[in-house]
Amino acid sequence: MGIIVQKFGGTSVGTVERILNVANRVIQEKENGNQLVVVVSAMGKSTDQLVGLAGQITERPSKREMDMLLTTGEQVTISLLAMALQEKGHDAISFTGWQAGIQTEARHGNARITNINPDAIKKELCAGKIVIVAGFQGFSDVQQITTLGRGGSDTTAVALAAALNADKCDIYTDVTGVYTTDPRYVKGARKLEAISYDEMLELANLGAGVLHPRAVEFAKNYSIPLEVRSSMENERGTIIEEETNMEQNLVVRGIAFEDQVTRVSVLGLRNELTTLSTIFSTLAKQGLNVDIIIQSTTSDNKTSISFSVKTGDLEDTISILEQHKSVLNYEKIEFESGLAKVSIVGSGMVSNPGVAAEMFEVLANEGIEIKMVSTSEIKVSTVLSAEDMVTAVDILHSAFELSKEVAKV
Amino acid sequence: MGIIVQKFGGTSVGTVERILNVANRVIQEKENGNQLVVVVSAMGKSTDQLVGLAGQITERPSKREMDMLLTTGEQVTISLLAMALQEKGHDAISFTGWQAGIQTEARHGNARITNINPDAIKKELCAGKIVIVAGFQGFSDVQQITTLGRGGSDTTAVALAAALNADKCDIYTDVTGVYTTDPRYVKGARKLEAISYDEMLELANLGAGVLHPRAVEFAKNYSIPLEVRSSMENERGTIIEEETNMEQNLVVRGIAFEDQVTRVSVLGLRNELTTLSTIFSTLAKQGLNVDIIIQSTTSDNKTSISFSVKTGDLEDTISILEQHKSVLNYEKIEFESGLAKVSIVGSGMVSNPGVAAEMFEVLANEGIEIKMVSTSEIKVSTVLSAEDMVTAVDILHSAFELSKEVAKV
Repeated sequence: MGIIVQKFGGTSVGTVERILNVANRVIQEKENGNQLVVVVSAMGKSTDQLVGLAGQITERPSKREMDMLLTTGEQVTISLLAMALQEKGHDAISFTGWQAGIQTEARHGNARITNINPDAIKKELCAGKIVIVAGFQGFSDVQQITTLGRGGSDTTAVALAAALNADKCDIYTDVTGVYTTDPRYVKGARKLEAISYDEMLELANLGAGVLHPRAVEFAKNYSIPLEVRSSMENERGTIIEEETNMEQNLVVRGIAFEDQVTRVSVLGLRNELTTLSTIFSTLAKQGLNVDIIIQSTTSDNKTSISFSVKTGDLEDTISILEQHKSVLNYEKIEFESGLAKVSIVGSGMVSNPGVAAEMFEVLANEGIEIKMVSTSEIKVSTVLSAEDMVTAVDILHSAFELSKEVAKV
Repeated sequence: MGIIVQKFGGTSVGTVERILNVANRVIQEKENGNQLVVVVSAMGKSTDQLVGLAGQITERPSKREMDMLLTTGEQVTISLLAMALQEKGHDAISFTGWQAGIQTEARHGNARITNINPDAIKKELCAGKIVIVAGFQGFSDVQQITTLGRGGSDTTAVALAAALNADKCDIYTDVTGVYTTDPRYVKGARKLEAISYDEMLELANLGAGVLHPRAVEFAKNYSIPLEVRSSMENERGTIIEEETNMEQNLVVRGIAFEDQVTRVSVLGLRNELTTLSTIFSTLAKQGLNVDIIIQSTTSDNKTSISFSVKTGDLEDTISILEQHKSVLNYEKIEFESGLAKVSIVGSGMVSNPGVAAEMFEVLANEGIEIKMVSTSEIKVSTVLSAEDMVTAVDILHSAFELSKEVAKV
């Protein structure tokens, strides 16, 4: 008998009927003899409705009051799920973020968890109760209600699993697991049995969207095995765990991709030690996220810097660069929109130096031009024309034989 | 400059438009140079919607989980009102019950406030902020979210006024004040300028419905002047304060009435010291509220007891009496439904012994039969046929000259 943390997202608890369904899933695990902590999000559309109410009052609501408003969403779900479990004959109790002892930084809208005091939860678990906890929310040391930002309920679940020394953390969602690539685009996409934290991080950062990166980081740091699985179908999902536990024979484990990418080039910069840091700290201060960065030096001791941004951030990026032209001291800015990023991810790359070369070759053979490249130990990213994106993913998926079932080790 | 507590009920904050209107009322008082604490209820129908969600899950939700669910209603309103005030350029901050330091008994659904720690509110007031507090809710010493039961937001407002040593507490509602009687039934009904706590208590208990009795009691105990006024119209309401501050020349200040009254008679009881207490403690244990009680002793040393109950409680009352027949040891039960209660209320009665007699005479002259009578120092209640109720109120209103404006003292 161990402690299991389960997390159900907004779609899984979107209606009363689904909440009753979630109750059944919870009871099933409870009847396997486990102690259960269940983290839930706000019901489906309720967050949008609350945001809509605020929008009728002001275009720029204070973050503190938005936290106050939005945290009611999960509070509704926890009470309804507790009622559903009680109605089905099981002892259950619901906790808001502050009742569950989830302490965060004293900032609103995107606070990080700083500490969890699990005493209240442990007490109820020992009393045989199923404990339901509101995801996404916490409280600061000055007794303010805070929220954890996007994907916050995942983080709540993993952090609770760490604080409770849980045996595992199951993330129930509207997909059945983590796939080699997006099955909506690639017919041969296959559900993975297992994937490492690092691979999942790379896939999550690249837009796979199943699990929030912060939650994966947390799970990695505390070695909490995660399972991503469907709240609707009763089948096994994908385990996310330490690399050492896993089959090693796959060099590439997944392919991530996203469009709406723009390349920005800042040309004719003076080649000074501080040039790079000045540009990117200026952008970071304005909250702009830059992805792939390439620097090239020309013969006249000038340097050029290219980087990719989300197309939606292009306007702000250009405007900030122009505002700081006197400090940055560049000649001109160019940009190219309509691009996409395609990345192959796999822990096996570390010991397989030819993987990047193979990727470039596969793309070249198809006549696909690579505009930017970035590599890490377990990932190779390429920027290419958005028109080529799906084709590129498709041929890479075949080339690295991702559709094939792999024998268990 | 003083502290004013304002309370706005569910109808007054029922839509975003009304919340913006409330913000204007708050700002008006703030600009008069006062420090403001604003207590709000859940938006109009939102409590019903939440109850409806629970009802889809279970017919008998736990009180603890209902408290968890329902308290989200006020939390939504406080954040929206804070946003509205901020949008209009005023510094405001919202507090849930626990943030506002409202401690209650550790019971759910109907907890009493045990203590208020106003430090957090005072700090924000000193910083020049308008403080918005969620009505109806508190927290127990074991960190549970509790609610105060019906009329709870009124109680929150008055209790905060007491804890903050406020100058006054304004209860904004959907009526313009306290009337001599219900203006929907009696054409000459007149808004009172002032009324004493005790009179208001008698009127509230008798169904005037403007203010919750517990809130009036609280105000009386801490000598907090209340004003009941309209959130829609900008006119003075009715002040509720100590009798000593008021005009004394009205003997009767108001007439309360309610129908759906049933008289139950328990006949042929043994005339023992414990008979009365046994019957009414048995009923009280089952949560049944008994109103007027009359005992009469017959010649054979037997006794009969009649009491009035709400017609909706009749079935339960009879059933409990029958269950306990062996202990109570009575001969038979009779009841008469279709009755109403009409009461005259006024502090002046204490020094005017003829008031009750005058009431009986007025009713007798109209041919109205009085079936039960009960008197207190400031109230005379009569039970009569429901058919006679409106006529009785009308003629009493005239007989005691309640339509007349009274000169200010």
